[in-house]
Amino acid sequence: MPLTRISLARGKSPDYLRALSDSLHRSLVEAFEVPPDDRFQIIHQHEPGELVFDRHYLGGPRSGDFVLFQITAGRPRSTGTKAGFYRRLVDRLAEAPGLRPEDVMVVISTTQLDDWSFAGGVASMVRDDRSAR
Amino acid sequence: MPLTRISLARGKSPDYLRALSDSLHRSLVEAFEVPPDDRFQIIHQHEPGELVFDRHYLGGPRSGDFVLFQITAGRPRSTGTKAGFYRRLVDRLAEAPGLRPEDVMVVISTTQLDDWSFAGGVASMVRDDRSAR
Amino acid sequence: MPLTRISLARGKSPDYLRALSDSLHRSLVEAFEVPPDDRFQIIHQHEPGELVFDRHYLGGPRSGDFVLFQITAGRPRSTGTKAGFYRRLVDRLAEAPGLRPEDVMVVISTTQLDDWSFAGGVASMVRDDRSAR
Repeated sequence: MPLTRISLARGKSPDYLRALSDSLHRSLVEAFEVPPDDRFQIIHQHEPGELVFDRHYLGGPRSGDFVLFQITAGRPRSTGTKAGFYRRLVDRLAEAPGLRPEDVMVVISTTQLDDWSFAGGVASMVRDDRSAR
Repeated sequence: MPLTRISLARGKSPDYLRALSDSLHRSLVEAFEVPPDDRFQIIHQHEPGELVFDRHYLGGPRSGDFVLFQITAGRPRSTGTKAGFYRRLVDRLAEAPGLRPEDVMVVISTTQLDDWSFAGGVASMVRDDRSAR
Repeated sequence: MPLTRISLARGKSPDYLRALSDSLHRSLVEAFEVPPDDRFQIIHQHEPGELVFDRHYLGGPRSGDFVLFQITAGRPRSTGTKAGFYRRLVDRLAEAPGLRPEDVMVVISTTQLDDWSFAGGVASMVRDDRSAR
């Protein structure tokens, strides 16, 4: 159920973007209780000056390869699950596309189950609504 | 009070985008308790590879016409209201621009009334703040 | 801890965008309890037709210079703090880049402390996790 906006500077190859997407999704499945086919991501590539970030706040040093993942989750996860996901994500991204952990920032927002309609005009996670259509 | 980010693949005409915008707004007014002149939308058009979605998860089959609506609402609505809105939205979008219900995904997030300043540096929905300026 | 998406029509100079960014950040530090080096912003510049807004709803008249700030905050702030921030922001933006208060809209969303990983795969605001790595 998560939807993730991935923001980075323009200039990476399609293969690089695909690796970002794959490693994020793999981490969500492995460590954030997400089904394998629940994959929804939006990549925003930015021009110089559009992506503004401090190089050293609570980590870093961040480089021009900085990537920000803003995740809208469908239901709450525990602090332990979130922490495990953060660790898994930087490990997977280090493998592919080879992103430094210092360049990985994540922000999670949480919604409720009835906030999602995946398709067809139904409240996908509400049993009565799914059966009513 | 809702703000909606509309994400789709680049390549549609201005008339198509306008119809998306109109049908979304009409559905919000008709079925989500939104005033007619409370209209704020941001359209994000994406290059190939930037919009990542599973073709079949909880619906579909999704096509290249897939549109994702991420709505930030100003106050909670009931499950029934949300479900009614989802139905209305796919019906309106089927009329114009002729979007298949299978290609419509919606995610709603909720805020509080004092989270909104529409203009002029006031907390627009807080009565004391509005009268103080 | 806030992350802000800044949306406006394409066509402003790099200096103008920098002034938007600076005045937002200064306002957050001065009136929203944000540390000086906690600066994360994403600027989205939009083509004609992509930024849809009512010219008069609860304020305005809005012009083509309209800017929408969507802020994801790390923890709740009081109504008074939010109201003070809205006032400060329009004042700073009027100074530089010279934006009319009528063209400033703000929406805030709130998360929890464990929703943020600033870098390195740690839950940055959770003490045990920071010390564990």
